[in-house]
Amino acid sequence: MTRTIDLNCDLGEGWGAWTITDDVALLDVVTSANVACGAHAGDPRIMAATCAGAVERGVAIGAHVGYRDLAGFGRRFVDVPPDELAAEVTFQIGALVAIARAAGGRVAYVKPHGALYNAIVHHAGQAGAVVRAVAGFDGGLPIVGLLGSEVLAQARAAGLPIVVEAFADRGYRADGTLVPRSEPEALVTRPQDVAERCARLVREGVVRAVDGTDVPLDADSVCVHSDTPGALELLRAARSGLEGAGVELRAFAP
Amino acid sequence: MTRTIDLNCDLGEGWGAWTITDDVALLDVVTSANVACGAHAGDPRIMAATCAGAVERGVAIGAHVGYRDLAGFGRRFVDVPPDELAAEVTFQIGALVAIARAAGGRVAYVKPHGALYNAIVHHAGQAGAVVRAVAGFDGGLPIVGLLGSEVLAQARAAGLPIVVEAFADRGYRADGTLVPRSEPEALVTRPQDVAERCARLVREGVVRAVDGTDVPLDADSVCVHSDTPGALELLRAARSGLEGAGVELRAFAP
Amino acid sequence: MTRTIDLNCDLGEGWGAWTITDDVALLDVVTSANVACGAHAGDPRIMAATCAGAVERGVAIGAHVGYRDLAGFGRRFVDVPPDELAAEVTFQIGALVAIARAAGGRVAYVKPHGALYNAIVHHAGQAGAVVRAVAGFDGGLPIVGLLGSEVLAQARAAGLPIVVEAFADRGYRADGTLVPRSEPEALVTRPQDVAERCARLVREGVVRAVDGTDVPLDADSVCVHSDTPGALELLRAARSGLEGAGVELRAFAP
Amino acid sequence: MTRTIDLNCDLGEGWGAWTITDDVALLDVVTSANVACGAHAGDPRIMAATCAGAVERGVAIGAHVGYRDLAGFGRRFVDVPPDELAAEVTFQIGALVAIARAAGGRVAYVKPHGALYNAIVHHAGQAGAVVRAVAGFDGGLPIVGLLGSEVLAQARAAGLPIVVEAFADRGYRADGTLVPRSEPEALVTRPQDVAERCARLVREGVVRAVDGTDVPLDADSVCVHSDTPGALELLRAARSGLEGAGVELRAFAP
Repeated sequence: MTRTIDLNCDLGEGWGAWTITDDVALLDVVTSANVACGAHAGDPRIMAATCAGAVERGVAIGAHVGYRDLAGFGRRFVDVPPDELAAEVTFQIGALVAIARAAGGRVAYVKPHGALYNAIVHHAGQAGAVVRAVAGFDGGLPIVGLLGSEVLAQARAAGLPIVVEAFADRGYRADGTLVPRSEPEALVTRPQDVAERCARLVREGVVRAVDGTDVPLDADSVCVHSDTPGALELLRAARSGLEGAGVELRAFAP
Repeated sequence: MTRTIDLNCDLGEGWGAWTITDDVALLDVVTSANVACGAHAGDPRIMAATCAGAVERGVAIGAHVGYRDLAGFGRRFVDVPPDELAAEVTFQIGALVAIARAAGGRVAYVKPHGALYNAIVHHAGQAGAVVRAVAGFDGGLPIVGLLGSEVLAQARAAGLPIVVEAFADRGYRADGTLVPRSEPEALVTRPQDVAERCARLVREGVVRAVDGTDVPLDADSVCVHSDTPGALELLRAARSGLEGAGVELRAFAP
Repeated sequence: MTRTIDLNCDLGEGWGAWTITDDVALLDVVTSANVACGAHAGDPRIMAATCAGAVERGVAIGAHVGYRDLAGFGRRFVDVPPDELAAEVTFQIGALVAIARAAGGRVAYVKPHGALYNAIVHHAGQAGAVVRAVAGFDGGLPIVGLLGSEVLAQARAAGLPIVVEAFADRGYRADGTLVPRSEPEALVTRPQDVAERCARLVREGVVRAVDGTDVPLDADSVCVHSDTPGALELLRAARSGLEGAGVELRAFAP
Repeated sequence: MTRTIDLNCDLGEGWGAWTITDDVALLDVVTSANVACGAHAGDPRIMAATCAGAVERGVAIGAHVGYRDLAGFGRRFVDVPPDELAAEVTFQIGALVAIARAAGGRVAYVKPHGALYNAIVHHAGQAGAVVRAVAGFDGGLPIVGLLGSEVLAQARAAGLPIVVEAFADRGYRADGTLVPRSEPEALVTRPQDVAERCARLVREGVVRAVDGTDVPLDADSVCVHSDTPGALELLRAARSGLEGAGVELRAFAP
């Protein structure tokens, strides 16, 4: 039996006349597409086109839910009350479910975006809102998050499937948290480094932290950010690193 | 066997800090609530509250889909290409379906809003987009529209259930079309007139046009606009007119 | 020579089809109107109507600048970088200046709104951005703020005129800060209490805190929030309290 | 005395996290920058950066006013009543004026964008609204438009300076109107063709129409659309065509 791993990336992050990623090229490399749901990016037309592209290539579709903050691209913390956030997440999942269905696909998982993703590593109220929204919609829908995060703990407690992801293009600290984007070692941008990290992740179950320590990390999915400079090349590097280490790339929730 | 008729009204048309209707009071009178889906009005929090109120009272929930034009409240024609409009309508239906489900309810029908409602009386391309979106989502979901409209013709051709509605608070012309809002006799605002029109609709199957003609109108639902001055009183008048004529008020799709 | 004091209130806080205050009635009572500039509320049409009403009545027009967060009505802190905030505030002031001029008026002061108002009581970076924006636009434009706030300190240091305001409808603590809205004594809603507080403010230069202490407060303007329940009645009470104490109501920057 | 001509282009058409043009590169080639004012594109931060870049290079700044339709990028006709449109245009001009001033520059002209530009070639009500807004703000501010358009006729009648522009990258019909974008010959995309057209425009005062006719065209400014494929190269071609014909490139309103 071959071991498998998933490779995910944020897609469909345009809005109106604007685009930010080469979605078609990226869809050819990933196994899971985190599709923006209209709140931080992604309008219905773009969502439909992204879902159609994913269905065509057998790429899994995930609801990339975020704060309702187009102006900030979902990258600014918004202090929204949990009940309102739960309704917001429910709204976004439902919208993408309908769009995916019209394209002949389905929503296979939920992955929070940007500032929401970061907030619910620690923020119990907002983490609970996300978990409540997902569980209330479909108790079998996995949530993708950071190892050790509040949201994954609450999701597990609620009986939801959880998926831990590793970031191939982000620096790690010795305690397993990410180096903040404001610091110099936040990003890993050399394709060779990305490939190597992916290979070690699979072979040894570790990622090298910025202080040289090896941090144990048992991840079901590897993420490359679509807005890291050279994202397409990094994704390809991640893919070749993973495949070179002998795992098969396959969506965790096909 | 008692004859039944439905009484519908637009609800949940606030957004953010703003409200426009007394949703709680109106929910006590109607049998079907057309719930705004975020494009012309209605944010997730308001949608959730409106659905909860509807479920509590056994009021049917309809997706009140509209153009993405918050600034114009969906009352301005937007020349959006059919494919984009279909994605837009699909998005809105899906969002409300998820919100309604979280509230313990379901979306029982689709009724287009404002300028979209008016456009698809004649506009074949946009009418087809709405029909395609609804049929693609759920072939059993009824569309509410105007007698003789393009959208209802296309919906019937596509095998969708259709629901014809009469407007208790709008003036009719002899040909069955509505008097435009720019003209003096566009609105019927005396409760007694509304009650009387409702009674005749049920008893004789006609509505009196502004030129005195009786126009035949076989409607499954009666609508009172929530933003007509004195809407709550008019809705109560409609209700008493209908009940006085011996029909039972019941949602067409409970 | 008669002593004078200003009475200010937030106005023009509708957007699109929505309204939140009875602007016409409120304009008849105040001497200064804080006009929303499109970011948290207020679209160009509403801004124009509000300015026209203010000009007609000789009411001073202030730029009520806020975070770009329509969905949150400017009441949620947004962690926007100072340079971006400065551009935002400049944008809003300029927009209102043009609208006011078209109505035959002028912008006489700047008063930040909601979460921005609260943030710059302490947040040095954002306070500096507001000061920089105002000073860069017109070094003679006063900023209205809270006694002891960071923004007023920086404004004074930058040579801008400053205006301290007292809240007639908010509870004070012994240290001169406001009781947070989440606490029971946050609002003063009895007209008689409002009138009395205004009278003491003028006569004795103090406001009674919730613990019974008298807090010294030398204010140039009194504010009543337009969304406090019964705002119109409270404004009238404030007016009669001030006039009864022998001061003349007049805009600080007519 | 050397003859001069202006070369204008749309700039600053990003919003939030999105960009659509390489503003820095384009600013190096043009003499006038039509800067988006927040309604169809352009947020305060982007407006400020674009104005700073223009000031640095001595490029004139124009207010590129459009319909409030971010989702449609201002390219869809919006049936907005004239009074509301006038307030909208006033708002946008004022916002850019303040932003430009903070950058050490000024707004030198107004050029409507997209669907608004096209609408006011014929739509008297909306043309009047634009003229009223500009004249009410500053009677010396030129409006840029199409030869023979309603808006230029009304502007001239109102005593405003007017500027006729020619499109270097658009096909013309024999009657001087543009070939609609839906038709094959709508765009001129070969740099050599653009250069040649510019040279003839200057030397002979004509543009070759798609039927081979030479159409007389006395233009004060030449426009290349920033979203025509290869816009930067086309702008450079236009520049070299114009300079090769012996005119000096200079903003009409420096």
